[in-house]
Amino acid sequence: MDTIKVAVIGHRFMGRAHTHAYTDLSIFFNTEYKVEKSILCANENDVFDLADRWGYKKAVENWEDVINVKDIDLIDIAAPSSMHAKIAIAAANAGKNVFCEKPLALTIDEAEKMVEAVEKNKVTSMVGFNYRRVPAIAFAKKLIKDGKIGQIHHFRGIYQQDWLCDPAFPLAWRLRKSAAGYGSHGDLGAHVVDLARYLVGDIDEVMCVQETFIKQRLKTVYENGLQAKAGTEMGEVDVDDASSMMVRFCNQNIMGYIETTRYGNGHRNQNRIEINGSKGSIIFDMEKMNELEYFSSEDPDCLQGYKRIQVGGDSFPYTANWWGAGHIIGYGDTFVNQTYDLCNAIHKSEKVNPDFIDGLNCQYVLEAGQISAETQKWEKVKKY
Amino acid sequence: MDTIKVAVIGHRFMGRAHTHAYTDLSIFFNTEYKVEKSILCANENDVFDLADRWGYKKAVENWEDVINVKDIDLIDIAAPSSMHAKIAIAAANAGKNVFCEKPLALTIDEAEKMVEAVEKNKVTSMVGFNYRRVPAIAFAKKLIKDGKIGQIHHFRGIYQQDWLCDPAFPLAWRLRKSAAGYGSHGDLGAHVVDLARYLVGDIDEVMCVQETFIKQRLKTVYENGLQAKAGTEMGEVDVDDASSMMVRFCNQNIMGYIETTRYGNGHRNQNRIEINGSKGSIIFDMEKMNELEYFSSEDPDCLQGYKRIQVGGDSFPYTANWWGAGHIIGYGDTFVNQTYDLCNAIHKSEKVNPDFIDGLNCQYVLEAGQISAETQKWEKVKKY
Amino acid sequence: MDTIKVAVIGHRFMGRAHTHAYTDLSIFFNTEYKVEKSILCANENDVFDLADRWGYKKAVENWEDVINVKDIDLIDIAAPSSMHAKIAIAAANAGKNVFCEKPLALTIDEAEKMVEAVEKNKVTSMVGFNYRRVPAIAFAKKLIKDGKIGQIHHFRGIYQQDWLCDPAFPLAWRLRKSAAGYGSHGDLGAHVVDLARYLVGDIDEVMCVQETFIKQRLKTVYENGLQAKAGTEMGEVDVDDASSMMVRFCNQNIMGYIETTRYGNGHRNQNRIEINGSKGSIIFDMEKMNELEYFSSEDPDCLQGYKRIQVGGDSFPYTANWWGAGHIIGYGDTFVNQTYDLCNAIHKSEKVNPDFIDGLNCQYVLEAGQISAETQKWEKVKKY
Amino acid sequence: MDTIKVAVIGHRFMGRAHTHAYTDLSIFFNTEYKVEKSILCANENDVFDLADRWGYKKAVENWEDVINVKDIDLIDIAAPSSMHAKIAIAAANAGKNVFCEKPLALTIDEAEKMVEAVEKNKVTSMVGFNYRRVPAIAFAKKLIKDGKIGQIHHFRGIYQQDWLCDPAFPLAWRLRKSAAGYGSHGDLGAHVVDLARYLVGDIDEVMCVQETFIKQRLKTVYENGLQAKAGTEMGEVDVDDASSMMVRFCNQNIMGYIETTRYGNGHRNQNRIEINGSKGSIIFDMEKMNELEYFSSEDPDCLQGYKRIQVGGDSFPYTANWWGAGHIIGYGDTFVNQTYDLCNAIHKSEKVNPDFIDGLNCQYVLEAGQISAETQKWEKVKKY
Repeated sequence: MDTIKVAVIGHRFMGRAHTHAYTDLSIFFNTEYKVEKSILCANENDVFDLADRWGYKKAVENWEDVINVKDIDLIDIAAPSSMHAKIAIAAANAGKNVFCEKPLALTIDEAEKMVEAVEKNKVTSMVGFNYRRVPAIAFAKKLIKDGKIGQIHHFRGIYQQDWLCDPAFPLAWRLRKSAAGYGSHGDLGAHVVDLARYLVGDIDEVMCVQETFIKQRLKTVYENGLQAKAGTEMGEVDVDDASSMMVRFCNQNIMGYIETTRYGNGHRNQNRIEINGSKGSIIFDMEKMNELEYFSSEDPDCLQGYKRIQVGGDSFPYTANWWGAGHIIGYGDTFVNQTYDLCNAIHKSEKVNPDFIDGLNCQYVLEAGQISAETQKWEKVKKY
Repeated sequence: MDTIKVAVIGHRFMGRAHTHAYTDLSIFFNTEYKVEKSILCANENDVFDLADRWGYKKAVENWEDVINVKDIDLIDIAAPSSMHAKIAIAAANAGKNVFCEKPLALTIDEAEKMVEAVEKNKVTSMVGFNYRRVPAIAFAKKLIKDGKIGQIHHFRGIYQQDWLCDPAFPLAWRLRKSAAGYGSHGDLGAHVVDLARYLVGDIDEVMCVQETFIKQRLKTVYENGLQAKAGTEMGEVDVDDASSMMVRFCNQNIMGYIETTRYGNGHRNQNRIEINGSKGSIIFDMEKMNELEYFSSEDPDCLQGYKRIQVGGDSFPYTANWWGAGHIIGYGDTFVNQTYDLCNAIHKSEKVNPDFIDGLNCQYVLEAGQISAETQKWEKVKKY
Repeated sequence: MDTIKVAVIGHRFMGRAHTHAYTDLSIFFNTEYKVEKSILCANENDVFDLADRWGYKKAVENWEDVINVKDIDLIDIAAPSSMHAKIAIAAANAGKNVFCEKPLALTIDEAEKMVEAVEKNKVTSMVGFNYRRVPAIAFAKKLIKDGKIGQIHHFRGIYQQDWLCDPAFPLAWRLRKSAAGYGSHGDLGAHVVDLARYLVGDIDEVMCVQETFIKQRLKTVYENGLQAKAGTEMGEVDVDDASSMMVRFCNQNIMGYIETTRYGNGHRNQNRIEINGSKGSIIFDMEKMNELEYFSSEDPDCLQGYKRIQVGGDSFPYTANWWGAGHIIGYGDTFVNQTYDLCNAIHKSEKVNPDFIDGLNCQYVLEAGQISAETQKWEKVKKY
Repeated sequence: MDTIKVAVIGHRFMGRAHTHAYTDLSIFFNTEYKVEKSILCANENDVFDLADRWGYKKAVENWEDVINVKDIDLIDIAAPSSMHAKIAIAAANAGKNVFCEKPLALTIDEAEKMVEAVEKNKVTSMVGFNYRRVPAIAFAKKLIKDGKIGQIHHFRGIYQQDWLCDPAFPLAWRLRKSAAGYGSHGDLGAHVVDLARYLVGDIDEVMCVQETFIKQRLKTVYENGLQAKAGTEMGEVDVDDASSMMVRFCNQNIMGYIETTRYGNGHRNQNRIEINGSKGSIIFDMEKMNELEYFSSEDPDCLQGYKRIQVGGDSFPYTANWWGAGHIIGYGDTFVNQTYDLCNAIHKSEKVNPDFIDGLNCQYVLEAGQISAETQKWEKVKKY
């Protein structure tokens, strides 16, 4: 049996999520190979302790030391977004397969170079749009592919979080363009755009509006993702708090709408996707991610209605490996599903979706949106 | 005790709805006056039978015969939209108070003349945005006014019906510009725009996209509202099937979005309004019109959540006159609430909202949207 | 065209509800006859004013004066429960058709005599279980009859109100055996038992438990239904606050459970009915009375789920006469549906369900429950 | 740092769930000790492969070989119910801490001996009622303890699954008394009874009814939990399919109802708990286990309503260790929470709830119910 040896770079929220995935893969899936958690890398002291707790063979502090370790098969980038490009390019050039958290990069230029690197070196690449492996989303994809929705007329993706409603929330790295690239438009928007591309198809044109409701916040003295503490000096929020985008798809007569906000008071993490077609509709909400609402106008008149399908058990993608219908899986488990497909692809030297090209194409959409937010005109989306 | 004498022009869907309102007013509300259903007018044979069944003193066939009847206090226009302007203007000029179903008129020019007529003659006018008298909406208004939502950041109004998903549905009058003015943009959009104006405030600019998914349908041989029968000849749908509009409000930093569609498969009549503010949020859905979802971020952290408030009983606007909490009222009953406010205003010779000026201002928004759908640019909204 | 002349006895909550029904019948239904609101009767001064407002020909104070009025076709009893029997028996003996609000009577003896009277005089009788005319319930009945649910395994009917949670709520007439017969067991239980009988079938045996959580309350100085005001003297609550009943149906292997409470904090009027069968399930909740949840295990595996059916429009019982799907009807409108069936039956001299025999059989179930609450044993249910 | 060494006996559904818990504990919780997966034991060939995949130090086939391994600290029993007693007693007598899946045992006699063994040997014991560690349930417990619900009037726990609706489903071990002890009454009922005891208090008396809707099923040729295959010979279902139980609590005036069924068509795993009290109510549904519905009658009148609280993030029990509000945890993660409390207790040589005494007291309730199902009388519940 083969072993896939993994180095994970990053040990915060996503480092933990990926560690969980590599760990639980063998508990829930029958694979023809093993996965070894070889290296945990992070530029902070606690990486040694965490590597030990999390079951890694060893820990290192500098990511450069990971790249050329001979028998590493997969480099998994869970580091800050500003480091994605250089690590990924170095990894690809070293012939490593590479997984990168979303967003792929801070700029289009970086993202294009990342694609170039993985294409040139013919390594397997994947970008971390884990929502594709929410079983209800994979099932929605199947319904669309099987023609159950018919011709699509509407796509709405509204992603609401609410952690910025509090004016006392400090100027975390996610609120600075230099560290995050975009605001909600990139952070949440990347997920929605990827789902739009996955479920419906390529996007051709966008018209975007953005707002920054609170423009000054207290600078953080120690930045640690969402847990940043406020200091005493004010600084500027230079990314969007909320972004609203009309969307035209390629070669399809569909009305598309994508909205993201961090001011959706009361919505901790509501990624609500609604698709209406000539034969049916689907509604998905990330906070209820084990359900899919499905309507079919092919049902007899008096039996038509939105059906709450509990996605679990033997009849749905991914779920047969889990607990049985009605015993829900969690957010973390979507990473296990994702890792399963990634490792299978590496094992067979195949491609897997969403790869870096998907990541780049997603970023082209976001960038066109960002430009449109300034020009206040419809902007064409570049395609790879 | 005074008596308010009413002539209702129109005897289809809305004629019935208004008749129900004038009839039930005295059953559910204690008024200082009586309402007499004096005349039912419609240009069809069955008006005599219906007037008899519905309890009118008499029936007439020509609306012109109604205008100058001496002791009529209120002329209620439930006739096709194309007739609104001429009837309303004649009525106002005859010194009659006038109620007109939405949309106020087919064109801005007509609407402006209607406003001019009621203003000049100092009669009470009202336009039929009955959703303002859904108790949950009136209560939402109160929450906003009382500061419970705080500073508003987002307004979303998405109105979905689905009766056009069926390609065999014929070319009803609502699908023709000459009879309906707009498509979903006017029919459903008027309600949403009015609620946006009522709950949030005036609209300054709009950016609109529209689609007509099915451009040819079988002409109807007999047009009767939604019940039109298909013939054998094809005709063109020359209004929108769906309309999507970004909205900027006056003097407020709010992201607004208004969408209407007749292709929202599975949604029979979902007028979903969501408002997020700095202190709280509300969600309303017309299909569950006796409920309001309310979130307050002023609640303690672990007790925050969307609350399903059953709007009924003594604590809410209008509902004390009905059945008690948990015993819901229906769509038709919103007309009774509306009629109560209208007749009170007439009794006291006061103004009432929404009046023809509201109707005109709503139409200015729709018209700016219609122009934007062609220019594909942001368009300023005229204001009265 | 015939005219059915009605005398309504009672002018509080139910008097208003019935008046609404007789009034609106001709607005929403095409009948071959007319209905005339001939007499409103109530032993209080304001009956004259109300009769005038509500459109009755005249008002009288003593019910005895109504019984023998020659051309009255229907006597409608909306008076206090303690008066049901004597009025109904007198009416039947005078050859009048008779409608009586639920509960039919305070005692079995009274109820039996009422049945005897209507049977002997061959008049049409009906008891006011208006929930049978909630379209979603009528549709549920159809689904069961059509075999869509298969063999029934479970019936659960849990009716929760919460107006007694407040210890300051006074000792209203509903809390006294002499005026109300039973507590929640009769008031709410009658509705649930009737729905169990309607949807599933006759009940054979019951096992009941009851509680009175607050045994002393302030006596009311003026009793007016739920609006009673508290005085200063304490009195005993001598009926149940809540009642829980296991139920065995006749000739069917079904587990039945019926519960009623006035302490279901937060449930203003939740009459939740759930039926599980071998082929499907249904769930109904009175607070969402325009919906029916339906599950079919005959759907393909991955398309199974509870479907929220919006009951409205042309495909459902009663609703074609109303507003169209998605435009909901209200609690009051169920009385219009009920009155339609009642008046049709009177017009054709036919029987209608639920008649006094249904009312009596319902009462037999409640009485067996009451006895069981004392014996703490299973008790057989008498049947007419 | 200490290490807690664990032997898990059983490698099916629950063996996997427990393995997941021991594995993920160190990823999500900061513990002062390590947990080592020392031995996986199961009497089947594939245990060696699974032990390897799942990260155990070694695998053994006979549970007797595990008991006396010197440095094992915790014996975790995930074996068939019929083996619980003998393994647990042997483990306790060997001085091992012992975790046992529910139900504790097949008979009261066995369960009493298990309690005796852990008490005599002063080892830490725990029984696998993992629902206590669903964060929403732990939070419900806190609300009750903090007085937010007030005096409790109603407890309803209805646990519905639907896998027996299909008559072709074979005679799995769960349908035989010799292997399972009880039917749904024990399997699902144990969870509900435990939650009733946890959230409300000890149970004093029960009145129970049971049904076996399909009494003959095809014998399985290979029994493998729910995955058993049907053979050709019929056998008798000698446990209940559904069980319904009225419940009286000790020293509290509460109406309790517990129902379990495997014929709740459409409900894959709906464990619905509803508690109504004088100050508020809570509703929980296992299929939506990251939510708690909460109603408070202490809110202002017009702001009362059931609130959907998303249980996640820093403000709730257990959830701070997971993903942040709106990023839900799964069924499997409740075992991690449970293991955290168990291992902490072992580390500190303390007791933990629910221990074997809780398991026994739960079983006393179920046994009283079973007897009542035969006597059809109220039966007193024994207490340890």
